[in-house]
Amino acid sequence: LEVHAAPTGLAEIAAPPAPGEEQPPLAPDEVTILGQLDATYLVVQHGRDLLLVDQHRAAERVIFDRLMAQPRRLARQLLAVPVTLELAPDEAAAVEDYREALGEMGFEVEPFGGSSYLLRSVPAQLTHSNPEEVVGGMIAELAQWQSSDELGERREAMLASVACHAAIKAGQRLSPPEMQKLVADLLATQTPAVCPHGDPVIVTMEGALIDRKFGRS
Amino acid sequence: LEVHAAPTGLAEIAAPPAPGEEQPPLAPDEVTILGQLDATYLVVQHGRDLLLVDQHRAAERVIFDRLMAQPRRLARQLLAVPVTLELAPDEAAAVEDYREALGEMGFEVEPFGGSSYLLRSVPAQLTHSNPEEVVGGMIAELAQWQSSDELGERREAMLASVACHAAIKAGQRLSPPEMQKLVADLLATQTPAVCPHGDPVIVTMEGALIDRKFGRS
Repeated sequence: LEVHAAPTGLAEIAAPPAPGEEQPPLAPDEVTILGQLDATYLVVQHGRDLLLVDQHRAAERVIFDRLMAQPRRLARQLLAVPVTLELAPDEAAAVEDYREALGEMGFEVEPFGGSSYLLRSVPAQLTHSNPEEVVGGMIAELAQWQSSDELGERREAMLASVACHAAIKAGQRLSPPEMQKLVADLLATQTPAVCPHGDPVIVTMEGALIDRKFGRS
Repeated sequence: LEVHAAPTGLAEIAAPPAPGEEQPPLAPDEVTILGQLDATYLVVQHGRDLLLVDQHRAAERVIFDRLMAQPRRLARQLLAVPVTLELAPDEAAAVEDYREALGEMGFEVEPFGGSSYLLRSVPAQLTHSNPEEVVGGMIAELAQWQSSDELGERREAMLASVACHAAIKAGQRLSPPEMQKLVADLLATQTPAVCPHGDPVIVTMEGALIDRKFGRS
């Protein structure tokens, strides 16, 4: 059975709030997870408002904040079985340039002959992630950076890259407990609405606006 | 714990589509109910789109269509215990004016002395509703109408009033099976997006629009 409906559209959505604009607090205990939309956004009730939460960016924010809260030299976890990385020439060059910075972040990488490298450890925070995927994505990103200057200034960018590659992806189905934990962890951060790259994590549809769109104001 | 977030807003929502505008079909089997927002709107996933469904208007549309599909003289169900109605003078006058029309709709109302009336039956379609509330609301509405002229033309308005007073209210919590049934019944009607009074039942936020608001286009 298919019926033809004429749904009204929620077409225009506002720009992000101006910097410094006053925003209402989000209290984690007033939040109810309704479900997952398109395996990409979490649909959340907060009081009378409807929130959409980008699951990948939420996870990025959570991981990034945890990494930033660590001492400069991150705690590392030796891998039971080292991971062999086969690198392209520009990637191998990036590993050589950034070897010390990678080590500070918990990634011990050593030459293994030719284009091969061995990954011996990962940041302790990331032991539940796929280490090959995280370090592979990160090295590919490092290889695109222009120079190894200002390494210190790039610590945040490197941690954002780690967080990005370690985070839950869009398109990944989550169980209700996984959704609960992600949203609770996100709301416990200081800036849950913006990911480490500056993109929106949360888009809000206010209850009063919804009422107006139904002509119920 | 309370944190201050800076959520981006879904602020502007489009006007209803122009009459005759082409609309995509809504296939009931592609619909997933995520939950209830503010005990007023059902939050529904349809493919990549997010739909909000006004539960009261959805129930109005379902009941109205069922009543309209009946013969002119609606099947009635005698009440096991007749309901006594205490009416204001204008309400009693309305009952006298509309007695025959009420009878055709399944509401047998007879004088019971003074301002009292007895309700002996209701439309068979409404046996699960609270008869006192349905007929009480309807008589109060009849009392505000200007005249009893054009009774025939008013059949639709009277059925819309019955549907309104018999329908699930905003603010009523629904179980998941109740939500499922309401949405399935709504999508089986010919015009699910508009209630009998012409107000929107469904507001749609398209998946592509959501992506754009997150800067993911």
